[in-house]
Amino acid sequence: MIKIAIDAMGGDHAPKEIVLGTLEALNQFKDIEVLLYGDEAQITQWTDGHERLKIIHTDKYLSMDEEDPVKAFRQNREASMFLAMKAVKDQAAEAVVSAGPTQGLVIGGHFVLKRISGMKRIALTPILPSFDGRVRILLDAGANVDLKPQHLLDFAIGANIIATNYLKITHPKVGLLNIGSEEGKGRQIDIETYNLLKENSQINFIGNIEPKEVFNSEVDIILADGFTGNIFLKSLEGMATAFMNAIKNEVQSSFKNKMGALLMKKAFKKIKNTSDPANVGGAILLGVDGLLIKAHGSSNRVAFFNAIRQAREMVKAEVMPLIKASLERSDDDE
Amino acid sequence: MIKIAIDAMGGDHAPKEIVLGTLEALNQFKDIEVLLYGDEAQITQWTDGHERLKIIHTDKYLSMDEEDPVKAFRQNREASMFLAMKAVKDQAAEAVVSAGPTQGLVIGGHFVLKRISGMKRIALTPILPSFDGRVRILLDAGANVDLKPQHLLDFAIGANIIATNYLKITHPKVGLLNIGSEEGKGRQIDIETYNLLKENSQINFIGNIEPKEVFNSEVDIILADGFTGNIFLKSLEGMATAFMNAIKNEVQSSFKNKMGALLMKKAFKKIKNTSDPANVGGAILLGVDGLLIKAHGSSNRVAFFNAIRQAREMVKAEVMPLIKASLERSDDDE
Repeated sequence: MIKIAIDAMGGDHAPKEIVLGTLEALNQFKDIEVLLYGDEAQITQWTDGHERLKIIHTDKYLSMDEEDPVKAFRQNREASMFLAMKAVKDQAAEAVVSAGPTQGLVIGGHFVLKRISGMKRIALTPILPSFDGRVRILLDAGANVDLKPQHLLDFAIGANIIATNYLKITHPKVGLLNIGSEEGKGRQIDIETYNLLKENSQINFIGNIEPKEVFNSEVDIILADGFTGNIFLKSLEGMATAFMNAIKNEVQSSFKNKMGALLMKKAFKKIKNTSDPANVGGAILLGVDGLLIKAHGSSNRVAFFNAIRQAREMVKAEVMPLIKASLERSDDDE
Repeated sequence: MIKIAIDAMGGDHAPKEIVLGTLEALNQFKDIEVLLYGDEAQITQWTDGHERLKIIHTDKYLSMDEEDPVKAFRQNREASMFLAMKAVKDQAAEAVVSAGPTQGLVIGGHFVLKRISGMKRIALTPILPSFDGRVRILLDAGANVDLKPQHLLDFAIGANIIATNYLKITHPKVGLLNIGSEEGKGRQIDIETYNLLKENSQINFIGNIEPKEVFNSEVDIILADGFTGNIFLKSLEGMATAFMNAIKNEVQSSFKNKMGALLMKKAFKKIKNTSDPANVGGAILLGVDGLLIKAHGSSNRVAFFNAIRQAREMVKAEVMPLIKASLERSDDDE
């Protein structure tokens, strides 16, 4: 049995969508057991119980717009998110899944699960969907505002394990997100990072990658400091939303367009689905000593189900033990 | 008469599309005269001449993939791009338009036109199109990889003049591109920039703006360091292209989709047109002592025509003299 700890209270639609996504996962995967942390009275509104589900009551949880997660952690260690992490720390569970606020998870990762040795920073590591069905790993998508080249190399080594063992990609290609493709482009930090990545034999570094080339490139792992990675991710989101809205507006504007859209309904749905992060899974908090999956804050039951599916598959692929072994080896190399 | 100097040799489709775009502008605008710099033998393949067109021959020009523009400038001051800039410096023209390589224009701006007093850096300043028809100014989109808060304030003051006098926006709203909307978000440099912008009374600062909110916000001027601005711009481009390609692929995949797309042909074209930077104009090199417009490297005749249109309108609106006056006043304030 794979034991998964779940924060029932994190996310814009918690606990309802979290509980329903969890029940769906319990029904589909007979090899998982769930420890569900949160307000029992609220949780039991959405479930009659399940033989592989255990509810652990706590009436404390983090607000989705928590502005000071360090303070929240100090004052509120019994919050559902932190208790779920503690289950992994205490080896009562093999993975934790939460749709709670990112910075809360980063803080909890640091203080509850702790960092793995050989990893000085934590990276928010989402798996990006794309229209061509090819998935790509982005890190750091926003856990740190600044990073040193060595941190990015550590991230590349960790992401390499995820890509190889979980996504089953052979010799994953690592690219550095930059404003030009040639060597020597970018800020001083980018040039130094490029040189460090180029020299490392554990990863398959293919050089700089420009944001406009990502979706027609063969890159599997996109490296960036957390500020740049977050700007990149949110720019993609912004453009995708603007595009969808523009099409919707056109469809409403004439009968002819309405008819056309009716014929293309399946096509539009397919495009929306293949580009929807909810169908890919959650973001991994890479660098913490334990498997921590952050589902999107706006997760519905499908998105949350997919985050649990991802946690299960990553446990089965033994991704975390491999990352730990690889980064400890990386320390020895120095 | 408004005299405009044009680099006939810059751009992926030079000189053909540059010459044809120029002829279109000469035909539409009776109040412009053009000085066209480039290889006469090549230029005359595409024009029989025009009473308000003067060709100034030079057989030197910058390659579009010039990797060392400083060296190119030192060795090649007779290149068409630099000669066209010199016309503005010598007051033989009021504006210069080129689709040549950005870094060449930045170097030429520094060495030929020079910076205006009170402006320590040059910003690449494109005007972004959007689906809602609202235009927004982005700067810096990639002239500098790092900037200090004071540089961004200078950019805001310059962009404020462009927005007010050329785009005719009343009290333009200035936003700082950042990873969160609350005060205190981002890197140390972003926090310092926020504080400096907040205190300034010459601009209407509305706070941080996240990339995903740009296209449904009222922001008119988006401030960023050149690295971040470039990542943002290229991410938008990448996503737009991926979206268009996904629709094209779906359309090809079934008869039903083909019929739907046929009905929606005008709608798709409208979306493509309203989101096409070619229809908005070029990017202004803000900070140089003279009006310098960079048309997109891949400019066709329409895009280049629009860059000339923009140069003409900006001369008429006296944008450059106002920027100079405003930044000199800004210096006095200190």
